[in-house]
Amino acid sequence: MRTASAGPEIERLITLLAKLPGLGPRSARRAALHLLGKRDAVMRPLADALADAADKIRACSTCGNLDVTDPCAVCAAPNRAEKEICVVETVGDLWALERAGAFKGRYHVLGGVLSALDGVRPDDLNIAKLIERASDEAVTEIVLALNATVDGQTTAHYLADKLEPCGVSVTSLARGVPVGGELDYLDDGTLAAAFRSRSAV
Amino acid sequence: MRTASAGPEIERLITLLAKLPGLGPRSARRAALHLLGKRDAVMRPLADALADAADKIRACSTCGNLDVTDPCAVCAAPNRAEKEICVVETVGDLWALERAGAFKGRYHVLGGVLSALDGVRPDDLNIAKLIERASDEAVTEIVLALNATVDGQTTAHYLADKLEPCGVSVTSLARGVPVGGELDYLDDGTLAAAFRSRSAV
Ligand SMILES: [Zn+2]
Ligand SMILES: [Zn+2]
Repeated sequence: MRTASAGPEIERLITLLAKLPGLGPRSARRAALHLLGKRDAVMRPLADALADAADKIRACSTCGNLDVTDPCAVCAAPNRAEKEICVVETVGDLWALERAGAFKGRYHVLGGVLSALDGVRPDDLNIAKLIERASDEAVTEIVLALNATVDGQTTAHYLADKLEPCGVSVTSLARGVPVGGELDYLDDGTLAAAFRSRSAV
Repeated sequence: MRTASAGPEIERLITLLAKLPGLGPRSARRAALHLLGKRDAVMRPLADALADAADKIRACSTCGNLDVTDPCAVCAAPNRAEKEICVVETVGDLWALERAGAFKGRYHVLGGVLSALDGVRPDDLNIAKLIERASDEAVTEIVLALNATVDGQTTAHYLADKLEPCGVSVTSLARGVPVGGELDYLDDGTLAAAFRSRSAV
């Protein structure tokens, strides 16, 4: 990380840039030089956007989504179905589903998944609030959109048990061949699931 | 780039992060979420470091290096040889040589190389100042540390011509097998140069 003659101000900038996921020391140095060449177009606006977002963005107390308002824009939207809640691990997953336009109900961000290895227990996740929301009579379906990992599936089973008394139907995303996916490269579990859930053409 | 429910503040942050070399839209989204989870440890310090560097860092009017002082720390260092000037294309190249501890003289940053394709002409580079510096009696050697590209070599030849009347010796970095380099993967030009410049073991 030492850049010798770069001076402490640039060193500090490079050290902080290198903390971004996807940027190592080398690309952080490249990014710092790139920014110093575009101070008014990128560097100062980025400084402002970072400070602004750090101050204004908060977690929605209803669903855990990140927004400048609480409740967030999704929770506040009058045209989104209140009866369906889609449970995701992270805000990034929520964004992915929104980009896909896959769902027009409300969300619930767990903030992770149960993990014996990482010591994540039910109390560490946003589960109590989910049970509370699912107990509302207006809610009829909880869609579990968790990652198809061991921890994701363990969490899904745990949530299905917890949600049973709430009188909602609990569903999860279909397993199958992804668009553009080549059978030869798919794991056996996916192939078997896709086969079981086959449908008429 | 649309992240739908993310809101304009996060959208703006993601758009600006995606302008960093090495970060695409996907990694910019990941970086934004990562930063929002580390506001005090990374996000606000990064905002400050960016604003601070944008305001304070300037190009050294002697050598073109970036620093908070003018002349820069390298030009001002009393213990660095004044008689040797190493010419580099960019500040990043200067940093690389400093990291390697390869050189204890002064530098001169050209700001690029001559390029017919990109329309870079001699007047676009920091050449006049180099000639002026090379004309100083205290300077005895100019080391051309330009990239081993076609444009880099064209520029080296142009500079060698221009520097001839200055009465300095003009040298360039040796060509050879890089440390850890496998002969089988080296291009013919490098191999031939390494062979010509072979030395006793
Ligand atoms: Zn919300
Ligand atoms: Zn300087």
